[in-house]
Amino acid sequence: MEIDLNADLGEGFGPWRMGDDEALLDVLSSANIACGFHAGDPMIMERTVKTALAKGVDVGAHVGFPDLQGFGRRVMRIDPDELATMVTYQLGALAAIARSAGHRMTHMSFHGALGNMTAADADLAERLVEAVARLDNDLIIVSSTSHAIETAAARHGLRIATTFLADRACDATGLLVPRGMPDAVIHDEAVVLERVRRLLRDGIVLAYDGQPLEMRPHCILVHGDTPGAVALARAIRGEIEAAGGRVVPVSRLMA
Amino acid sequence: MEIDLNADLGEGFGPWRMGDDEALLDVLSSANIACGFHAGDPMIMERTVKTALAKGVDVGAHVGFPDLQGFGRRVMRIDPDELATMVTYQLGALAAIARSAGHRMTHMSFHGALGNMTAADADLAERLVEAVARLDNDLIIVSSTSHAIETAAARHGLRIATTFLADRACDATGLLVPRGMPDAVIHDEAVVLERVRRLLRDGIVLAYDGQPLEMRPHCILVHGDTPGAVALARAIRGEIEAAGGRVVPVSRLMA
Amino acid sequence: MEIDLNADLGEGFGPWRMGDDEALLDVLSSANIACGFHAGDPMIMERTVKTALAKGVDVGAHVGFPDLQGFGRRVMRIDPDELATMVTYQLGALAAIARSAGHRMTHMSFHGALGNMTAADADLAERLVEAVARLDNDLIIVSSTSHAIETAAARHGLRIATTFLADRACDATGLLVPRGMPDAVIHDEAVVLERVRRLLRDGIVLAYDGQPLEMRPHCILVHGDTPGAVALARAIRGEIEAAGGRVVPVSRLMA
Amino acid sequence: MEIDLNADLGEGFGPWRMGDDEALLDVLSSANIACGFHAGDPMIMERTVKTALAKGVDVGAHVGFPDLQGFGRRVMRIDPDELATMVTYQLGALAAIARSAGHRMTHMSFHGALGNMTAADADLAERLVEAVARLDNDLIIVSSTSHAIETAAARHGLRIATTFLADRACDATGLLVPRGMPDAVIHDEAVVLERVRRLLRDGIVLAYDGQPLEMRPHCILVHGDTPGAVALARAIRGEIEAAGGRVVPVSRLMA
Repeated sequence: MEIDLNADLGEGFGPWRMGDDEALLDVLSSANIACGFHAGDPMIMERTVKTALAKGVDVGAHVGFPDLQGFGRRVMRIDPDELATMVTYQLGALAAIARSAGHRMTHMSFHGALGNMTAADADLAERLVEAVARLDNDLIIVSSTSHAIETAAARHGLRIATTFLADRACDATGLLVPRGMPDAVIHDEAVVLERVRRLLRDGIVLAYDGQPLEMRPHCILVHGDTPGAVALARAIRGEIEAAGGRVVPVSRLMA
Repeated sequence: MEIDLNADLGEGFGPWRMGDDEALLDVLSSANIACGFHAGDPMIMERTVKTALAKGVDVGAHVGFPDLQGFGRRVMRIDPDELATMVTYQLGALAAIARSAGHRMTHMSFHGALGNMTAADADLAERLVEAVARLDNDLIIVSSTSHAIETAAARHGLRIATTFLADRACDATGLLVPRGMPDAVIHDEAVVLERVRRLLRDGIVLAYDGQPLEMRPHCILVHGDTPGAVALARAIRGEIEAAGGRVVPVSRLMA
Repeated sequence: MEIDLNADLGEGFGPWRMGDDEALLDVLSSANIACGFHAGDPMIMERTVKTALAKGVDVGAHVGFPDLQGFGRRVMRIDPDELATMVTYQLGALAAIARSAGHRMTHMSFHGALGNMTAADADLAERLVEAVARLDNDLIIVSSTSHAIETAAARHGLRIATTFLADRACDATGLLVPRGMPDAVIHDEAVVLERVRRLLRDGIVLAYDGQPLEMRPHCILVHGDTPGAVALARAIRGEIEAAGGRVVPVSRLMA
Repeated sequence: MEIDLNADLGEGFGPWRMGDDEALLDVLSSANIACGFHAGDPMIMERTVKTALAKGVDVGAHVGFPDLQGFGRRVMRIDPDELATMVTYQLGALAAIARSAGHRMTHMSFHGALGNMTAADADLAERLVEAVARLDNDLIIVSSTSHAIETAAARHGLRIATTFLADRACDATGLLVPRGMPDAVIHDEAVVLERVRRLLRDGIVLAYDGQPLEMRPHCILVHGDTPGAVALARAIRGEIEAAGGRVVPVSRLMA
């Protein structure tokens, strides 16, 4: 069994940091890097890319709404064509920084409110996935379960790496439960690890309504911005290896 | 005689426009497009690129300081390594938008205060030109006369297209006279056209101190944001053609 | 008959202008000034305030979403408590600039998407109007017809100056028809003037569905950012005076 | 002996925090609050003001350059008139938030590069201090030693509370040594405390060149964004009280 372990990194801005990217990059196989819209700036992007390169970690673009203050978590009603161009802009910026650092952008994912809206809206997913494919059809889309995104990716010939968010509840269709809902974020590390174990062993996740949901993800995503994130990531990696699995970067996994 | 006629375009932001890009693109052979730092946003970049493509006009990145309010004209003391990464970011963003639109980014230039500082500072020029070369050594640097930039471009094997700013005074070394100085910007169209005629005929420009300065530029740059810019651009194109010259995109000129 | 004639001014940003504020200030009695969130910056605010003072025009704060690129016209889902504080922030900024210029902030209004959302949402209106009252209960709220805002203003003891938007369609309850709808913005000057005449003569406006709607507004608002805005404002002022009315600043009207 | 103990607070932005404001507010007598230009946003301002109010701590505006990414530490060449209006804008925003929270803005100070430039430039100091006085001549200016600022404050009838930065080196005239210089920031807590003790006991600080400099400050400023800031603030407060002094808010001190 091979699986990718990734996290959203580079989510500081200017003088501000979020999470311990340096330590996480020792544990992960792939990193989704903020591109300056919801978080991140050129220096942070470059530093994260260089560290990832040094540690053999894949880098991808984590694209979001243009809303630093709201960290891309606030719904914004932006025209889909404009959003598509914003996605292209962010992908291009990270691709250039990766290339200049001697690394390569292998994947992309949608952040926060943009991610939730895209996962739930077939038209928006079609428009944004088309923008990804038009720029670079070797890019892998990293996404939690979403019929909308999966359908669009298939239509445009893009590979999709489905992702299990170990500490986030999902509904019966696999969509993430919005952060505002009770218990949408699972804070109990023991519960998170039990979810991982069950997923690895049985391919089953308990949905928000308590029903089992079959899931065979390519990736497990950990959140880097929570206290204890590094320890949790290590524990999850330990579970994978204990189950006889291997943690490999998403581009190798999907090759 | 072949010469490129270019202008800085896409310098609106959000709801705001600057200049009549649409009309200018009928006259120019190359466009330097703002990349969202001192002006421009993804939609404006895309629209400008698409119109340029339809009209056979080359597109390049016009990179600047992260200062929309000051339009990139205010000096900012930013660490050169950080500036270099900001240049890479902007180049990547425009390259991606061009590529997605079926066009190609052929060149780049420095805007405003960043341009003035880079033209006058050998260390900064070295650092920023190195960033350009590292990303894509096919990019042409479009620049007014600057020993610093020319030296750095030569060192990194980049082609440089020297540019005559028809409506801006230059000093005896060819460096632009800062905007704050009297008569730094030449508003009299007749004077501007006479400067162009003399340049085309004799390869001579009168410097700020009245002395003749030899100049054999590859490009003439017109400012799109001044009243009468389109008429002036047409008049300059008329002078070039009357002198038996041909207006060609910068990438063809330097091929 | 006394009526206030106002417009949203100071809607440029940095190097960009929108509308001919200088000329409009000769025609208006009150100005609603952008406060740097959806448009405007400190210099533009100050310049607009000083010109208004010189011309005897009232100034108020036109508060909006923190979204320059979208000009405050894009819906953003921001927590009402946070929006309330953003309103306070913007009111304070304009009040200070007015005070330092020797003028006085007399009123406020809500811009764009924030305005539409507040006009239609009793809870949001309550929260934001409460923030206005808490800062300064002498402020007049300038608003198109909205039961939500009127109710909240009454509850908090704030005066409300109802406003007729001469070039915007409204529904049967007086709420503005969203800009995206066909004919939401009325471009035909003759139609706009006929609406004004009928309003002045009969106190009647034709709603979007063609039904007459009774309306006795304190103010007429003209849009400064449309071509011909100054001529239209003059024509409307002409209609008011031809009908025997007087154009007076909103603070005098509500005194 | 009475002295004010203050710090720069509210220096987060959106999702990002800097320092432990909550804990510091238990130790301080005054807080200088970022106003959204170099750091801070309306919610953070409001939260900091409310906590300060609850703990009997004075609030003032900490105004800076419009440069979140650079945290206001990068020199920007902005026209002094424009800077003056930016100062007014920021003062107004914080004053309004304080007033709405039932608190009162008592003082102001200049942040980062703006602070360094103002302290060293008599013309700029004159222009900015005049802007402060014009808005509210009850405001106290909190500043490290600066002949320029002191002269301007005297001319405009503003009180000035001179401030000792316990962990920052100063030159022989009392001006702060720029952060870029070696040992400009003193990291050794024992050295910092020894400086405080000597100041309290003898009214003497050792300048960067090792010479003793006489200083009788009204305030001691601690930096909230360094590791161990809370412990250091407590230790400094302990030194003051051990020396028989009392920590009092700046507005009481200057009354």
